[in-house]
Amino acid sequence: MREAYHKELAAIGDGLVDMTRQVASAMSRATHSLLEADERTALAVVQGDRAVDRRRQELEDRAVALLARQQPVATELRIVVTALRMGAEVERSGDLARHVAELALMRHPVSAVPVELRATVRDMGALAYQLMSQAADVIASRDPEEAARLQQADDQMNQLHRAVFARLGEADWPHGIETAVDVALTARYYERYADHAASLAGRVVYLVTGRHPHPEGSLVLTP
Amino acid sequence: MREAYHKELAAIGDGLVDMTRQVASAMSRATHSLLEADERTALAVVQGDRAVDRRRQELEDRAVALLARQQPVATELRIVVTALRMGAEVERSGDLARHVAELALMRHPVSAVPVELRATVRDMGALAYQLMSQAADVIASRDPEEAARLQQADDQMNQLHRAVFARLGEADWPHGIETAVDVALTARYYERYADHAASLAGRVVYLVTGRHPHPEGSLVLTP
Repeated sequence: MREAYHKELAAIGDGLVDMTRQVASAMSRATHSLLEADERTALAVVQGDRAVDRRRQELEDRAVALLARQQPVATELRIVVTALRMGAEVERSGDLARHVAELALMRHPVSAVPVELRATVRDMGALAYQLMSQAADVIASRDPEEAARLQQADDQMNQLHRAVFARLGEADWPHGIETAVDVALTARYYERYADHAASLAGRVVYLVTGRHPHPEGSLVLTP
Repeated sequence: MREAYHKELAAIGDGLVDMTRQVASAMSRATHSLLEADERTALAVVQGDRAVDRRRQELEDRAVALLARQQPVATELRIVVTALRMGAEVERSGDLARHVAELALMRHPVSAVPVELRATVRDMGALAYQLMSQAADVIASRDPEEAARLQQADDQMNQLHRAVFARLGEADWPHGIETAVDVALTARYYERYADHAASLAGRVVYLVTGRHPHPEGSLVLTP
């Protein structure tokens, strides 16, 4: 009974790690598609997001089956419930990668990102990929120190996000309204994505240490 | 045992309905604060969102306690897991109301919405409130027909969203980049919020009929 339980729980954990890596890769490819106006890659990301959604559903089905068969209590129950929440959060991160790819498709054959902001968007994409890959590592390792470092690392994304909005706020923006809106939404997708990576790390910290991550509802005055 | 179970389950359901109404009211007040540049109301919405986050945590704690004590299986287990997911979705809807209020604070004492778009944003706010209130009703009544109607009703929000982006795409936009970005993000917050209301209804349909709501990962080419 116990062995079967731990085997099922490990399978759920492995599935979550794989799904998180898949979503990291999706954001990396979505960024490429956005910067290079690469329609084929963008379409692959959009299609691939359905597979992520299916995996989230499978994860939920497995978790529910495990709850029904093994009826865990206390910490073990909390682990399964947390895995459910993390699965939903990874799925949402995948949606954000899909939004970036959808923007690439919508503006194809032109890139939605003006030349002067390409380096910043490239940095955001690289950081997003790195953070979500680290989140996958942390889910696998359950190392609370690595998780705590990841929770801090999304500061860097907030700086990039602020840099984009500062540029949009300057009087000499020459690229028009539509591009400004595209860039603002894109920056927001990356920022939300990084938030999810940090939040996943926070859930690992909670699982391992019992300490709650910092509250989500804090007052942040950036759109 | 069965009676205790049904009592606890009813308490979780009641908590979810209350929380959903609270989030509907938050969006209504956030819209007022945005249109009227009403700092006091905006601050109250931002503060109130912490209470929503706490309620979501309480709901999760109750659900986990119920799983541990009553160890439900089959349909009853699915109900508890679905309640957990709905709680997370209502919390996220509350975050969107908070984002609207934060924008009001950020632009105070000016309204972030130019006069020509006030009526549209007012309509979006009223529709958002109506949809989330209906979602609360549907969670309470579990009426699958009412739920199915609500799943269709967010089309109206998509139309308003498209109208805003169409206006932003016109050559004669006179309000500058910052306002364009504010308006675009605001429209997106309302649209996401309406999506959540429809998704909550979809989960009710699934609970009652066993039919899955339409897949989330469909290809939609609006940012």
